[in-house]
Amino acid sequence: MTVITLTTDFGTGGHEAGVLKGVIWTIAPAVQIADLSHEVTPQDIIEGALLLWRSAPYFPAGTIHLAVIDPGVGTPRRGIATHIGTQYFVGPDNGLFSMVLARAGENQQRIRVIQLDQPKFWLPEVTSVFHGRDVFAPVAAHLACGTPMDALGTPISDPVRLEIPKPVRTSFGWVGEVIHVDRFGNLSTNLQASHLEGMTDAVIRIKHTQIDGLVAAFGQRPAGTLVALLDSSGSLAISVVNGSAAQHLQASVGDGVELDLKG
Amino acid sequence: MTVITLTTDFGTGGHEAGVLKGVIWTIAPAVQIADLSHEVTPQDIIEGALLLWRSAPYFPAGTIHLAVIDPGVGTPRRGIATHIGTQYFVGPDNGLFSMVLARAGENQQRIRVIQLDQPKFWLPEVTSVFHGRDVFAPVAAHLACGTPMDALGTPISDPVRLEIPKPVRTSFGWVGEVIHVDRFGNLSTNLQASHLEGMTDAVIRIKHTQIDGLVAAFGQRPAGTLVALLDSSGSLAISVVNGSAAQHLQASVGDGVELDLKG
Amino acid sequence: MTVITLTTDFGTGGHEAGVLKGVIWTIAPAVQIADLSHEVTPQDIIEGALLLWRSAPYFPAGTIHLAVIDPGVGTPRRGIATHIGTQYFVGPDNGLFSMVLARAGENQQRIRVIQLDQPKFWLPEVTSVFHGRDVFAPVAAHLACGTPMDALGTPISDPVRLEIPKPVRTSFGWVGEVIHVDRFGNLSTNLQASHLEGMTDAVIRIKHTQIDGLVAAFGQRPAGTLVALLDSSGSLAISVVNGSAAQHLQASVGDGVELDLKG
Repeated sequence: MTVITLTTDFGTGGHEAGVLKGVIWTIAPAVQIADLSHEVTPQDIIEGALLLWRSAPYFPAGTIHLAVIDPGVGTPRRGIATHIGTQYFVGPDNGLFSMVLARAGENQQRIRVIQLDQPKFWLPEVTSVFHGRDVFAPVAAHLACGTPMDALGTPISDPVRLEIPKPVRTSFGWVGEVIHVDRFGNLSTNLQASHLEGMTDAVIRIKHTQIDGLVAAFGQRPAGTLVALLDSSGSLAISVVNGSAAQHLQASVGDGVELDLKG
Repeated sequence: MTVITLTTDFGTGGHEAGVLKGVIWTIAPAVQIADLSHEVTPQDIIEGALLLWRSAPYFPAGTIHLAVIDPGVGTPRRGIATHIGTQYFVGPDNGLFSMVLARAGENQQRIRVIQLDQPKFWLPEVTSVFHGRDVFAPVAAHLACGTPMDALGTPISDPVRLEIPKPVRTSFGWVGEVIHVDRFGNLSTNLQASHLEGMTDAVIRIKHTQIDGLVAAFGQRPAGTLVALLDSSGSLAISVVNGSAAQHLQASVGDGVELDLKG
Repeated sequence: MTVITLTTDFGTGGHEAGVLKGVIWTIAPAVQIADLSHEVTPQDIIEGALLLWRSAPYFPAGTIHLAVIDPGVGTPRRGIATHIGTQYFVGPDNGLFSMVLARAGENQQRIRVIQLDQPKFWLPEVTSVFHGRDVFAPVAAHLACGTPMDALGTPISDPVRLEIPKPVRTSFGWVGEVIHVDRFGNLSTNLQASHLEGMTDAVIRIKHTQIDGLVAAFGQRPAGTLVALLDSSGSLAISVVNGSAAQHLQASVGDGVELDLKG
């Protein structure tokens, strides 16, 4: 049974998220549908890109990820479908798939991208304000039914790729930054396990505060302690045990994080 | 595979929304269940009615819409099931289905309504506080299993119909009002594409502010611009590109909107 | 078709809740998945326990309840699976299943508990920060596929049981307390129908306010009235009709509630 995931900035208070399911099940009645999140910050393409990058590896082969953070809807921005490894991604061509494309490149995975230009696979009436419903959901459903990529559009080689900020090498280690803050106030950074070079006793500095070494788990320190650790996606994260690092440090996306490997 | 949709004001923090699914799958294990929204403003029947009206057309034939915004639960208010076209609606008889009933009337669709009075299709124990779980979810599940309407209750001809405010014709065009504000701060009105009489250069006035003409899509104007456009349901909406019209105009449900066709 | 329910404190803004579904459907493609709630107050084990206790009775035989409120993840706290009656519960051994275990004891139901110690049924890589994804979701999926409890771990007899506060008998009746506040501001207490001893004209006192007798339904009193009633779980609840008792009384979890049977 094919799985289609949904990632949007629609919220769950309106009809938009539910209507995607109606459109999908009208075309592909047997697919499983998983909400990844409808709470992406409105128009925040990077946040959506990060969410897809973290989630996709845990879904079965054949999964189709439908993502609609689409501030350019109704303008000439393209709609695309992307085939990466064993999975598919469908949505606007605005950089939403930058991070999964970058990882596929690093892993030398085969990538195919098409521009969606075959209206016979869309809803009969296409508005200029809701392509999630009118274009992308029908295309995802047709993919789930086995319609080949080639029938849905024309190959392209230049999908929009947004620059995700990259850590910078320094004399003492790396300087990265906060790229996401979750519900608990945990700060995710663009520093990965590989930047640690095996040194779990590295010193982390953020907002004039110093953290000496990483813990392996929240529960290793008492509630209220500021800690650094590798999160469930292998990213360096800064947290307060049973509390909020965002609040404790008054930190937010874009704040610099120094990783000092020399102590 | 039959689809059942859920529309409630329960929120998603408690057990109520999940329990509906347990009850449904106990009776009808193979149905697909789609949350439309559990975030309807508590007791706001009109908001629920609007959500159903916008969503239903995108669901497959045979879909059963279970809706529980039910401030009158436990009083003598009736429970009903409604058959409109190829779909079903189940819930309290308090006006929740007013808008889909009105549209069915305009479209000369066949409407059948029954009062739910056959407790053998309900849970064995019916509380006076949660008919969503005890009455409506079991009835929706039995409909999905093929139990005919006639077995579930007695035909009635007078379901409660709430008056949705209608635009008023004036010497210069129409006066309508804001009927919904979404998560982005977009203002939906009761003015429809038909009220424009084809004049996309009409002038819109709201809260002493004038908007000259409609745009076809958000992306046609720079971020921060106040615009009017036809939304994904064909309603006239007032928005700020990548911003909040509700905040910008200090506008809310009930505020008047003038549509001036004479400029 | 087996049902797996999800109860977490992850929120719905990140990848965590969605990823559980990916892991489950990779192993068990045909199961139905129902979100109970992902909005449990972070680290609030009692709130999770209460939610499971209220929800489980309405799910089909064979349902597997996956619950991840897990502040101790990565410490030596055990992971467990519990078989109670016809259902299963999977999660950290921190008291999350205290209330369903207590009820099973009262009902003399058979209880089996195993400690999860068979990594071959987990993801290949187990982090120290996300056992919901790495351990509990795979175990739940394997249970759904028919893997027997005995293969997944070793029987134990001492799962953690948290003390849920119990009402105290007094000369005039019972003293209980508020144990949950829902989205509407309704106050749930640990007083049950049985404590009323049939006296629906009992007097309830909370925060220096007195309520004379119980109503059978919200709709029996005008909007704004403070009422006491038996809620959909058979617990004594204190509510304001179409309003918030929490706000009206400035009440919260832990506040005392007197049930005076002598009037």
